[in-house]
Amino acid sequence: MNFASDNGAGVAPQIISAIGAAALANAPAYGADAWTQRARDALSAAFERDVAAFLVSTGTAANALALGALTRPWSGIFCHEEAHIHDDECGAPELFSGGAKLVGIAGEEGKVTPGALRDTLARFPIGLAKSVQSGALSLSQATEAGAVYKPDEIAALSAVAREAGCAVHMDGARFANAVAHLGCSPADMTWRAGVDVLSLGATKDGALACEAVIFFDPARAADFEFQRKRGGHTVSKGRFLGAQMGAWLKDDLWLDLARRANASARRLADGLAACASVRIVWPVEVNEVFVTLPRSMLAPLKAAEACFYEWSSRAAATDAQPRDGEAFIRLVCSFETSEEEIDRFVGIVASGARASA
Amino acid sequence: MNFASDNGAGVAPQIISAIGAAALANAPAYGADAWTQRARDALSAAFERDVAAFLVSTGTAANALALGALTRPWSGIFCHEEAHIHDDECGAPELFSGGAKLVGIAGEEGKVTPGALRDTLARFPIGLAKSVQSGALSLSQATEAGAVYKPDEIAALSAVAREAGCAVHMDGARFANAVAHLGCSPADMTWRAGVDVLSLGATKDGALACEAVIFFDPARAADFEFQRKRGGHTVSKGRFLGAQMGAWLKDDLWLDLARRANASARRLADGLAACASVRIVWPVEVNEVFVTLPRSMLAPLKAAEACFYEWSSRAAATDAQPRDGEAFIRLVCSFETSEEEIDRFVGIVASGARASA
Amino acid sequence: MNFASDNGAGVAPQIISAIGAAALANAPAYGADAWTQRARDALSAAFERDVAAFLVSTGTAANALALGALTRPWSGIFCHEEAHIHDDECGAPELFSGGAKLVGIAGEEGKVTPGALRDTLARFPIGLAKSVQSGALSLSQATEAGAVYKPDEIAALSAVAREAGCAVHMDGARFANAVAHLGCSPADMTWRAGVDVLSLGATKDGALACEAVIFFDPARAADFEFQRKRGGHTVSKGRFLGAQMGAWLKDDLWLDLARRANASARRLADGLAACASVRIVWPVEVNEVFVTLPRSMLAPLKAAEACFYEWSSRAAATDAQPRDGEAFIRLVCSFETSEEEIDRFVGIVASGARASA
Amino acid sequence: MNFASDNGAGVAPQIISAIGAAALANAPAYGADAWTQRARDALSAAFERDVAAFLVSTGTAANALALGALTRPWSGIFCHEEAHIHDDECGAPELFSGGAKLVGIAGEEGKVTPGALRDTLARFPIGLAKSVQSGALSLSQATEAGAVYKPDEIAALSAVAREAGCAVHMDGARFANAVAHLGCSPADMTWRAGVDVLSLGATKDGALACEAVIFFDPARAADFEFQRKRGGHTVSKGRFLGAQMGAWLKDDLWLDLARRANASARRLADGLAACASVRIVWPVEVNEVFVTLPRSMLAPLKAAEACFYEWSSRAAATDAQPRDGEAFIRLVCSFETSEEEIDRFVGIVASGARASA
Repeated sequence: MNFASDNGAGVAPQIISAIGAAALANAPAYGADAWTQRARDALSAAFERDVAAFLVSTGTAANALALGALTRPWSGIFCHEEAHIHDDECGAPELFSGGAKLVGIAGEEGKVTPGALRDTLARFPIGLAKSVQSGALSLSQATEAGAVYKPDEIAALSAVAREAGCAVHMDGARFANAVAHLGCSPADMTWRAGVDVLSLGATKDGALACEAVIFFDPARAADFEFQRKRGGHTVSKGRFLGAQMGAWLKDDLWLDLARRANASARRLADGLAACASVRIVWPVEVNEVFVTLPRSMLAPLKAAEACFYEWSSRAAATDAQPRDGEAFIRLVCSFETSEEEIDRFVGIVASGARASA
Repeated sequence: MNFASDNGAGVAPQIISAIGAAALANAPAYGADAWTQRARDALSAAFERDVAAFLVSTGTAANALALGALTRPWSGIFCHEEAHIHDDECGAPELFSGGAKLVGIAGEEGKVTPGALRDTLARFPIGLAKSVQSGALSLSQATEAGAVYKPDEIAALSAVAREAGCAVHMDGARFANAVAHLGCSPADMTWRAGVDVLSLGATKDGALACEAVIFFDPARAADFEFQRKRGGHTVSKGRFLGAQMGAWLKDDLWLDLARRANASARRLADGLAACASVRIVWPVEVNEVFVTLPRSMLAPLKAAEACFYEWSSRAAATDAQPRDGEAFIRLVCSFETSEEEIDRFVGIVASGARASA
Repeated sequence: MNFASDNGAGVAPQIISAIGAAALANAPAYGADAWTQRARDALSAAFERDVAAFLVSTGTAANALALGALTRPWSGIFCHEEAHIHDDECGAPELFSGGAKLVGIAGEEGKVTPGALRDTLARFPIGLAKSVQSGALSLSQATEAGAVYKPDEIAALSAVAREAGCAVHMDGARFANAVAHLGCSPADMTWRAGVDVLSLGATKDGALACEAVIFFDPARAADFEFQRKRGGHTVSKGRFLGAQMGAWLKDDLWLDLARRANASARRLADGLAACASVRIVWPVEVNEVFVTLPRSMLAPLKAAEACFYEWSSRAAATDAQPRDGEAFIRLVCSFETSEEEIDRFVGIVASGARASA
Repeated sequence: MNFASDNGAGVAPQIISAIGAAALANAPAYGADAWTQRARDALSAAFERDVAAFLVSTGTAANALALGALTRPWSGIFCHEEAHIHDDECGAPELFSGGAKLVGIAGEEGKVTPGALRDTLARFPIGLAKSVQSGALSLSQATEAGAVYKPDEIAALSAVAREAGCAVHMDGARFANAVAHLGCSPADMTWRAGVDVLSLGATKDGALACEAVIFFDPARAADFEFQRKRGGHTVSKGRFLGAQMGAWLKDDLWLDLARRANASARRLADGLAACASVRIVWPVEVNEVFVTLPRSMLAPLKAAEACFYEWSSRAAATDAQPRDGEAFIRLVCSFETSEEEIDRFVGIVASGARASA
């Protein structure tokens, strides 16, 4: 019962097979190989546009390098106040941007709203020397609260950003889950809605270690190869990134895996919602379930070796915050979460709920 | 006939198996897993000492993060003038050190000598505010010219460095090949000879993408976890780095693979040395062969799809430099270079030599 | 009627004289001169302790270099959300710290409270790799709202900071004004209350361009000379910084000038408070007066060439915010603000108030 | 007898007067004042072109900020191997460029030659990801050896630089001395010869603390205001920089002062050249004299309180290096060096020479 993170999951067999096949041959190093080229082509196909795509091993690298490419050291980077880039990357965006300033914006369900964005940008007048300047808006899709921006929400935010001279970045660590949820096209959720650069994560969705930085306007990527190399993120046997990305995209494997994870979260949320004294904090749109429950239930769960994190959020509305005696926990499903695990977890909570009723 | 780089090779089957096995289970993320723990234990065993070891995906990351951990932005980093960290990493050590100054030192066969090091350090007086300060000496083992420092050479350099307040780093991208050549213990070539931190490369020696940063004094590693995370180099499904490193070290696989590559280079060098008009530029100690040969031989080699790089070296002694009409090339063997490939390559050169005689 | 900033004022005659005298002689460069030595001695005397003091030309340099000396790139720097270091230095602390993260804390009158500090620090657990680590608390004395921390307030904040592993920095751009207001000793307001490093500003208080970075524990300053030089802040004819600082401290000139500026603000505030429809937003403790007044009064003030800034503050309590039709302005007095200027300004406001009554 | 550096000199009376006059009035802060505007106009007039000029307090700031404006972190900065920016600024160019790599080039008399520049640039292929990329060529005028580039030499170097995609920076810490020596126009020595940005130093030539960063194409300066502010180099009472620069340029004071310093060096060199066992190492073109002399002469000079530095230079030709028993010293004259001082110094050397003859 590992609900700690989709990072803890294994790797889809199709991807392991692709790695094994690539291991048998030699190939040019540093991404000049056929696997990487095929992965780039597949990304262009998936996004209905010729993109400039670069593969790296971690989501933090994908985000920080992308933001570094869009900004200068005297830029502001605007994001939700609980965004992964702000809270969970130990300052990687600061490193790769040369010291840009991340500016957090409050908002429900991990979302930035156009109004809040506009108010925040107004604090940083263009041309005022003492103020950091417009750099980039970074949106997390899905958000840290498991919510999904709809294409028109993204377009509205992009419009505000662009007016202030900001580029638009999307942290898509759970992009596949968001696409699977909305059923819209990847293009509608990105460049057609004004996104300039996407960090597309495969790792949480069944890959071993593979993320893509995708520039929808290849001209923006002019210096990226240097930035990636300088960051130590140009993998020497690059074909293994290409092989992962190729297998992940092939025959819509990425969406199948994401749908599986989302469906598991749905089943888990439905089961928990039926338990007395359990409250689902935010709508369940992707593969994450945030709940409050009586703190007394934690012991039997841990006894059964269930893994999950206790959570906290300044961004949660007051009535979503845990009350006295309650715990606030996050449960994440992956492509390989089983119905049995879910039902066992729900069963423990349900019996705890009955006992305390 | 891929002699371009050991980076182009495939992956040892034992390592692919270990990755496949690790893919079947879930595990804690970010290196808090059993595979990573076992790899750390195996490294401590291999180096006969409790080390603090951190796994990353690229050699550039291993070098640059290690140097960042040993220096401050106002430090000098002293290395051979053609060292990989100086010439081939697009400024990664500068990024991770916050802008330290790399100072190149001339020397035969890619080696720094104690005298040259002492002279160079003397240009940067300790305490003089206008001068960058002593930071780190970085030695490449084996060097860019395929030469190997003997333990007493390392000890002599470490002594000079330490006297000037420098820490000692070793870039061990081909460390296994150097150990296989010398037949000495890894400990003798590192901490017993004064090395503080080793970047130990497995990728060029049969792994998929795995390098270790090894602190022989764990106290020096106090902040490294933050530096690695901030660099985007903390892999989320970290067990796959652990699995690679574990399999690589198990039953001395690493040394077997390195011996194979070294023996191939030996065979290649011996074959070429017997050809008229071919000159072996530097002694062949590991898996690299540097030769000059008539430029007219390049066409038939390329026609046979032989891959290799033309080389150039300010560091080569005058009589080792290519003469008019000659090409200077580097040939690298890997663990999977076959005798057939070698003999075919030598055959083409030999018949070219006979033709032009 | 220049109430725009104390930055716009002239220079005290004693300081100009000292500069002129120093210009007649030659002297060792880079601060190795007798004027600088005397200034350091005078600072040690003023703070009742042997301090390590370094002179620089700007307040931004003093703050950013001080914070750079106290932190590492993966540190958090904690300050009021409207602190000068966060809002008005274009990211200088990020530059000099190598990309540390500034974390703003809300609070009335520009002040951080121990409770808010504790809550904020709790979001950055020590040892958690994904989180920036405890670095420094920075307090502005006086604050951006013209308020002054009392020694026991500072001590309480220092205690919270230290417990979390943070050093304590004080931005003393208007330190003299704060000392003049409280009448306490400089030592009580700094190291006796737990401050590690003070940026002491003379420029706004009558100097030409002179600030000191003062380390109360000289051991913390071990690398500062390199950091200052590397920042381009080691002035070559350093004696002119020494001459300014010496003259500023001599015979308590610094406190006389500050008292004058504070008294002018007091007179201005009293005059304005007597006008109908004018509201003093924050208590007037130093040389700044923040008021709301009918927007219709701005035109006659500007016609009379009064200079001042319109202000805005997220930190102002709701009932201190300007209402419809009101302007929120900041008025700053300097050591050379005259009673005549003040009375003229008040007169214009008063007659506007009568007219609109 | 202060021959240690022109940094140790006093300040020209005209400049002190201008500072005193500016101190009497208030003015807008941060360079938005009339003095600064007049200085900018005077610079445009002096360079026969509308320039974008920014005043700062130190030469290191002027150089490092200029280089930061011309480069990106993955750039190479090409300069003479003994250039001030490389050897004497504790890594300031690295800080302000975000970690660019300074690449030293050997050459006689502190000069870079077109051939050596071309060879060096060839080591950094454009577009090769592992290599730092073309950024800027930086020329020192006059050089560290007191030599002056002629306009056609500068034009030839600029052409090589530009072809490789490098911008051209000139470190003009002693620019006035070079203009005075050549008698050419400032425009001929800069933008007409391909220089993009000049760091123009007034401090060594009679100012208190004032340098200008001059962009000959104002479009290149688009972000400079942010870079200067972020570096802590935007002086709050900016009028005092403007007043210095204005007075320095007025009625060609700058050239008068430089001519005086150059003439003093000439007199000093002539006097020393006449002494047996003294050798003038490099041609004396500006205000610096480099000589070798018997080490036994140092004691009587020091006894007479003569100040100067012992020197060393890798760049000096072999036959210019000090021989056994010789000292190599640098003597710098300033605008206020007196004939009496010079003659006294020469007298001591001459009598030492006679004694040892």
